[in-house]
Amino acid sequence: MTTPQLDDTHDPTAVSWVESANAPDTDFPLANLPFGIFRHDYEERPRVGIAIGDQVLDCLAATHEGLFADVDPSVRAALMSWSLNALMALGRDDARAVRRVAHRLLRAGTPEGERARAMAREILVPMDAIGMRVPAEIGDYSDFYASVHHATNVGAMFRPDNPLLPNYKWIPIGYHGRASSIVASGTPVRRPRGQVVATPDGPPTVAPSQRLDYELEVGAFIARGNRQGEPIALADAEQHLFGLCLVNDWSARDVQQWEYQPLGPFLSKSFATTVSPWVVTLDALEPFRAPGFERPAGDPAPLPYLDDATNRARGGFDITLEVWLRTAAMRAAGADAVRLSRGDFSGMYWTLGQMLAHHTSNGCNLRPGDLIASGTVSGPTPDSRGCLLELASRGQSPVALGNGESRAFLQDGDEVMLRGWCEREGFRRIGFGTCAGEVLPVLG
Amino acid sequence: MTTPQLDDTHDPTAVSWVESANAPDTDFPLANLPFGIFRHDYEERPRVGIAIGDQVLDCLAATHEGLFADVDPSVRAALMSWSLNALMALGRDDARAVRRVAHRLLRAGTPEGERARAMAREILVPMDAIGMRVPAEIGDYSDFYASVHHATNVGAMFRPDNPLLPNYKWIPIGYHGRASSIVASGTPVRRPRGQVVATPDGPPTVAPSQRLDYELEVGAFIARGNRQGEPIALADAEQHLFGLCLVNDWSARDVQQWEYQPLGPFLSKSFATTVSPWVVTLDALEPFRAPGFERPAGDPAPLPYLDDATNRARGGFDITLEVWLRTAAMRAAGADAVRLSRGDFSGMYWTLGQMLAHHTSNGCNLRPGDLIASGTVSGPTPDSRGCLLELASRGQSPVALGNGESRAFLQDGDEVMLRGWCEREGFRRIGFGTCAGEVLPVLG
Repeated sequence: MTTPQLDDTHDPTAVSWVESANAPDTDFPLANLPFGIFRHDYEERPRVGIAIGDQVLDCLAATHEGLFADVDPSVRAALMSWSLNALMALGRDDARAVRRVAHRLLRAGTPEGERARAMAREILVPMDAIGMRVPAEIGDYSDFYASVHHATNVGAMFRPDNPLLPNYKWIPIGYHGRASSIVASGTPVRRPRGQVVATPDGPPTVAPSQRLDYELEVGAFIARGNRQGEPIALADAEQHLFGLCLVNDWSARDVQQWEYQPLGPFLSKSFATTVSPWVVTLDALEPFRAPGFERPAGDPAPLPYLDDATNRARGGFDITLEVWLRTAAMRAAGADAVRLSRGDFSGMYWTLGQMLAHHTSNGCNLRPGDLIASGTVSGPTPDSRGCLLELASRGQSPVALGNGESRAFLQDGDEVMLRGWCEREGFRRIGFGTCAGEVLPVLG
Repeated sequence: MTTPQLDDTHDPTAVSWVESANAPDTDFPLANLPFGIFRHDYEERPRVGIAIGDQVLDCLAATHEGLFADVDPSVRAALMSWSLNALMALGRDDARAVRRVAHRLLRAGTPEGERARAMAREILVPMDAIGMRVPAEIGDYSDFYASVHHATNVGAMFRPDNPLLPNYKWIPIGYHGRASSIVASGTPVRRPRGQVVATPDGPPTVAPSQRLDYELEVGAFIARGNRQGEPIALADAEQHLFGLCLVNDWSARDVQQWEYQPLGPFLSKSFATTVSPWVVTLDALEPFRAPGFERPAGDPAPLPYLDDATNRARGGFDITLEVWLRTAAMRAAGADAVRLSRGDFSGMYWTLGQMLAHHTSNGCNLRPGDLIASGTVSGPTPDSRGCLLELASRGQSPVALGNGESRAFLQDGDEVMLRGWCEREGFRRIGFGTCAGEVLPVLG
């Protein structure tokens, strides 16, 4: 196990020979170097890529050119595979080694950088010339509920007498999601039909969901897994987290309300979940550490398996998160998207490490490429609520969009874009790219 | 699409040259021919097999010997692969073709049978010489709640004022389970630790589960999948069901009670789920059709997407299901296992076709090899309850085992064995084999 630390890759003065990577507002400067899976339009086979400015380092091509000669053969094999699972399975130390080599290759003024620059046409591809895939074959997808603000706001709607259940402050509440319907950013999402009710006890009718919503979440891909029956301790949890992405957990609220008792959400969520395609490694996020949630007086301390000094001091991440909406009318008018909310990931009641430690505490085995998501990221203020259900108070206060339109829930043609980035004095800003999807009308 | 029908493979007078397949009590006569994945002890690579009596037809070897020359090359390729996913993806018609060829190969007195018999040493392997695997790479596992008796009994314990929720008779209630921790019959299951409470509102402590339980279920593997956004109609549902197995959905009831609100069971289930290794095709089950559940007067009719004449007439399957228990003391005394319950799958409130149609009604995509399970199969009588929670009335009435022992919940060393079979006048009895697992003590 290696202690995370700052190194050359976090040097804010380092300059890339890929000029777009030096723009102050790029999500993908030399200090980021997230991994993804892309496809050339001329071949079916997907490839591993590393984002740099508005370009992608083609890891298959770069490996063929001998640029990754310094890493272990097993790592080179992973860089030539079709998904990130192989690299994830090798673990964080090997991914860190790749990121360090890529940093040297893409940096201006170094011998490795000059050698790579001479091969730019072979190893770089413009982002706008390729399609991005879901970055891993996701075996299992687990979704948590880690914002106490979201849990309280939503709980008050579904259970006015009992908003925050007694288990909330003890358990990082989570449930199993649907892996098959996870799609990459840019994939349109079809409005689902489902059973909906006019009164709480039914009878239901089948109708297109009228309460289609997004949920702003942060996801984490699992690196090395654990053997079934053998929990991962909180102190080791982050060694099993490969990196983070943005997640839109699309939700049909009317379907959810009728179906969710007693076994939890099912069809209200399983029609689609969108992920951003670039996995930002925990190494890239190292400068943006934040303390774990500081519990207000009166809240119980976490149980010992969910508590340690490291998690309290630096278990969180300072990630600014935004939701943007572009309606069909805005597109027609050539208008820009509007921002619906802005929040911060550091305000979550549970850290990703606590979620992972809890998830495996019963011996449940995680596998490389599994995805865990945080649940809706909502903050304490009205403008930091991470879904329309909260922003528009269950439809009672539609959100004005500034162009005469308003939204209680999503309409057909609406495009939802999640964005996330980290900024801190003394470091380069890094970002997650976009997690976008447009709502298609219900089928037939 | 082919209409299911009876054919030569259901002829009760057909005799196999594999003598053990002609025993009246075998689960695997010539009329069954279920598919599974096995491993020779001398090689790592798993193979496709077909059970026949106490032997397994090695499909890789049989294909190499040219015995499957009559099927399509894509089907032969599937028979030579490492899991059943490829065969499942081809669909039910191709699996039916394989089963028909296997029937001719394993039948006595036919030219194909005599040719195969001459190669018996090359193509057959004794069941007791091999290990069985989970039969498919399961992408997603969904678990339903389709016995109204189970839902009512358990609901009364968790919600005495509100046992059967208003949605139950409208929705085949289901939730996402954990795919990674599904294991094949025979794999020991370690007792999990978890948060448990002495009073409903906590505070919790972390302890080994004291209320470990089994759940007797029937599982169905998906054949061809559907595209995301495109529901499968009830009339087409069975074309997407490859075959059935037995499922033990191990459950930690004390963990479940504290964690399950509001998002459903999570760690109380995800530590392990056991499946029987032989997938009994819907073709083999054709003679054992039963009507769908006949709703008592006063129950609502199913909504149109969950109702058609075929489902009402023959959407169910008449499968006798039993749970057996062998304790450590019984093993030490050389005593046989005792039967805890016997029920029938035909009494479920929802058919597998209804579950599948509902599952995809929102556009959720199923993939070949996905597993859907029925939920605990409990009948109306006390001796047909499919879990200890019900049999022992939440621990209040421990079940006497006849040797001086009793059980409210499972103890370390207990081996739980699920069995299932079909019998009907004029047809050969077919069975599912065993779904077994022994409880190991909590780790460390």
